[in-house]
Amino acid sequence: MRRFSLIVLAAAAACVQPPAQAQVTLSGTLDLGVKSVSNTGVGSQKSMSSGANSTSRIIVNGREDLGDGLWAGFHLEHGLLGDTGAAASASKFWDRRSTVSLGHSRWGELRLGRDFVPSYNNWSRYDPFAYVGVARSANVVSASPTGPIRSAFGSNANTTVRSDNAVQLLLPGGLGGVEGSAMVAAGEGGAVASGLAKVIGLRLGYATKTWGVSAATTSSENSLTTDGKFKDTAIGGHAQLAGVRLTAAWRQFDVGQAEQVLWLVGAVYTQGVHEFKASWTRSDMSGSVGTTVLGANDASQWGLGYVYNLSKRSVVYASVARISNDGASRYTITDGPAGMAAGGSSSGYEVGMRHRF
Amino acid sequence: MRRFSLIVLAAAAACVQPPAQAQVTLSGTLDLGVKSVSNTGVGSQKSMSSGANSTSRIIVNGREDLGDGLWAGFHLEHGLLGDTGAAASASKFWDRRSTVSLGHSRWGELRLGRDFVPSYNNWSRYDPFAYVGVARSANVVSASPTGPIRSAFGSNANTTVRSDNAVQLLLPGGLGGVEGSAMVAAGEGGAVASGLAKVIGLRLGYATKTWGVSAATTSSENSLTTDGKFKDTAIGGHAQLAGVRLTAAWRQFDVGQAEQVLWLVGAVYTQGVHEFKASWTRSDMSGSVGTTVLGANDASQWGLGYVYNLSKRSVVYASVARISNDGASRYTITDGPAGMAAGGSSSGYEVGMRHRF
Amino acid sequence: MRRFSLIVLAAAAACVQPPAQAQVTLSGTLDLGVKSVSNTGVGSQKSMSSGANSTSRIIVNGREDLGDGLWAGFHLEHGLLGDTGAAASASKFWDRRSTVSLGHSRWGELRLGRDFVPSYNNWSRYDPFAYVGVARSANVVSASPTGPIRSAFGSNANTTVRSDNAVQLLLPGGLGGVEGSAMVAAGEGGAVASGLAKVIGLRLGYATKTWGVSAATTSSENSLTTDGKFKDTAIGGHAQLAGVRLTAAWRQFDVGQAEQVLWLVGAVYTQGVHEFKASWTRSDMSGSVGTTVLGANDASQWGLGYVYNLSKRSVVYASVARISNDGASRYTITDGPAGMAAGGSSSGYEVGMRHRF
Repeated sequence: MRRFSLIVLAAAAACVQPPAQAQVTLSGTLDLGVKSVSNTGVGSQKSMSSGANSTSRIIVNGREDLGDGLWAGFHLEHGLLGDTGAAASASKFWDRRSTVSLGHSRWGELRLGRDFVPSYNNWSRYDPFAYVGVARSANVVSASPTGPIRSAFGSNANTTVRSDNAVQLLLPGGLGGVEGSAMVAAGEGGAVASGLAKVIGLRLGYATKTWGVSAATTSSENSLTTDGKFKDTAIGGHAQLAGVRLTAAWRQFDVGQAEQVLWLVGAVYTQGVHEFKASWTRSDMSGSVGTTVLGANDASQWGLGYVYNLSKRSVVYASVARISNDGASRYTITDGPAGMAAGGSSSGYEVGMRHRF
Repeated sequence: MRRFSLIVLAAAAACVQPPAQAQVTLSGTLDLGVKSVSNTGVGSQKSMSSGANSTSRIIVNGREDLGDGLWAGFHLEHGLLGDTGAAASASKFWDRRSTVSLGHSRWGELRLGRDFVPSYNNWSRYDPFAYVGVARSANVVSASPTGPIRSAFGSNANTTVRSDNAVQLLLPGGLGGVEGSAMVAAGEGGAVASGLAKVIGLRLGYATKTWGVSAATTSSENSLTTDGKFKDTAIGGHAQLAGVRLTAAWRQFDVGQAEQVLWLVGAVYTQGVHEFKASWTRSDMSGSVGTTVLGANDASQWGLGYVYNLSKRSVVYASVARISNDGASRYTITDGPAGMAAGGSSSGYEVGMRHRF
Repeated sequence: MRRFSLIVLAAAAACVQPPAQAQVTLSGTLDLGVKSVSNTGVGSQKSMSSGANSTSRIIVNGREDLGDGLWAGFHLEHGLLGDTGAAASASKFWDRRSTVSLGHSRWGELRLGRDFVPSYNNWSRYDPFAYVGVARSANVVSASPTGPIRSAFGSNANTTVRSDNAVQLLLPGGLGGVEGSAMVAAGEGGAVASGLAKVIGLRLGYATKTWGVSAATTSSENSLTTDGKFKDTAIGGHAQLAGVRLTAAWRQFDVGQAEQVLWLVGAVYTQGVHEFKASWTRSDMSGSVGTTVLGANDASQWGLGYVYNLSKRSVVYASVARISNDGASRYTITDGPAGMAAGGSSSGYEVGMRHRF
């Protein structure tokens, strides 16, 4: 096996004449670590984790300049579990993104295919842990596989993160700090069993060099959301103070009589190669799913993290997090031992390394 | 995520010294569009389509010059559904092609592995829509999953498009317009459940700059073709008149007492960046499958398409097609609403963009 | 489809200024052949084989120099069956290796993720056929899916070749011929159904230019190894005499009351572009699995191979092998006809070509 059969130039300057336009790019991330999670009453469990700092992935993408500000491009992104070598999604190899785009420097971008929904986009950017690792805000998102609002989507793929079959319009750059996007996805007449949902979403933001605010809303319906659309709204903001990036965000899921409100406060302090991260997330449930009253399903989580940047591409990191559950709530950090009783606490830590290529 | 971490040279001229021989190439196509299909009596359905102009795919291939006209090469091709990010085949990642070759400029090419069968190769080249999109001739191919002759292969992979385990000999170039190939595939003693079939096929063609003709035949047998081999014969020709490429082709499937004959007439008119396409396909069934008489299963389809070439790599396109069914026939354009009665009509259109990389 | 859209430089010298550091490499192997296997009393079967000289695969890897001897790197390796285009593992796309590393020229390498276990590493290197093809020593390894010791791992993934979730330390180069590694893998509290096992292993070797010896041991436990750990020990050596590389190795599997001892003697003679290979492997079973006494399960295999090197990257090859079974033993060369009686013989040959890219 020849390892370096394909030699790649890291800078255009490597050649005397600049290379013509790049047609395709192969890049990605591999991130692995060791992790331990303890849950009240059921002990602890060690495991190897993938993507605790940044999801392990492979990206194949490219862009073609068509002249006069017009361009075409594509983006395929495959998530993988580096600890076992498995694809992150058994049914969708390019689960993270699969889009083709036609764009113009002044008119924005028309993007077709599978991508993040606007509300997810507008929430995860304010999570200092980027929705991954022991301290990810996803741990207390009830629309994830563990929570009661999840029943709106049965056991199949939902739209709290991404949507298939989407048409998006994205605002161009150069609008004086205004950015935004609109998404529509076809339900394709399918039942939820195939993960299909009719989606409509919007995102609008404004940012300067030191602060920004943005809001998004996404509405989905499929054969399981029989008592009305599933609504997902996220509002957030950030401010840069000295070396600290402060973030705050609010997200609300609504379906039928059930509602979940999430609060997130985060801080990232960067000093040279050191990065310190802290987050606090709170989930408040209300209403009901069928005859199950959700009011006593609240939980809160805090997380702390440290990242040492070996280079722009390679880091080592450590994180610690703890979830406190109230009442019937039993949110846990993933990969811990099963069987924690309601109202228990889940705590965990991880140490790992991330390499981008 | 660094998007352009791998910088690629689009022309050898980019370096003062020419690069040594390329060892591996990463390329492909991403093609997405929006589509609507109406079927008699059951309304219409909108969806996102993948590969309506050219199948979405990733190709990893390469060739090594061994000197004295000898070369070695490989080709791996993965089909994907860009609308969801799923692999086109759940069981075969490199479903479109997986071959290794040893070739010689004068003696031709020995190619081992999964590839198109000769008859498919000799039919699809005459379809102006290349067997994809709303107007693809595949819509009325009964050996596809929808038709009666399909029963010869049960619900598993058949050999109307590709074969696993194949050994092929391909004629070299430079034979004064003569081209051709022979294929043999091992049945591997397997039942059809694994998609295995014993295959033998031949293709021979002759082409000048302005016209060409070719013929191919492919014969398959497996544990389901109990009343004789499945035979697939395709004959076609093309002529270039002014800016118009005219094509005509005939294909016949035979198994046991069942027979299907397909006729295809196509035209592609290219003027600068504009491309206009038209096709007419007719399916005539005869004989029987078990006690089911097939005579009343005929259908015809016409298709019209327009392609605007933004560049050699990027296009936008629109197509429209309509299938008229006779008797018990119920061919439909894919992704329409289910439940059309026999004898109904199916019509659809799509608008999309295709990017090659 | 543009085939050579990505032009790759095969040597840094191709540019006047040397390229900056490579970030990612795409490489691999495609190896296909035709094969026939005859088993006593049940005839023969022809098939197409993948990876008979070297496993068909795609590798994406890279390394970043962090200065002062420190480096970071990753390695993703996907096995594939070139005859059908399928992934070698249905559940783990990157089944061959998925690791991220932090290394130092003087302190060695810390490697996280899925990789070979030390004992496998220390056995396969002494097999002239590299554990693949008709003559591979794997044919008579009872811990493979066919043998009685396999029951220690049920029908799921075992650790005789690789382990998920592993942390490894590898000795650096420059230790005067001493090399070695240690591996620990988390069981993740999982049942064997998910292929999880707690693993601990060690490998230590010493090599000069003309000879070398090495030893390794690996111990695994999971929910199926209820009567004690599964132990896998391998010791081997090689010597270079004129153009001949001689190898000898011994491997022992132990679990509960069952034991298997394997002996391997190999020779590879290289003369210019010609390579001649021979191997003899013997399996001795003893003890029992439950009430099944294993003593009468012995077998021996010899293999002969010839490789013609068309270039460093491309070869054509032919191999032949025969297994003689004693008593209740029924080891066979893979892809032969089913149903051979105990004590029969299995013989096979293959002819193919391998291309590296």
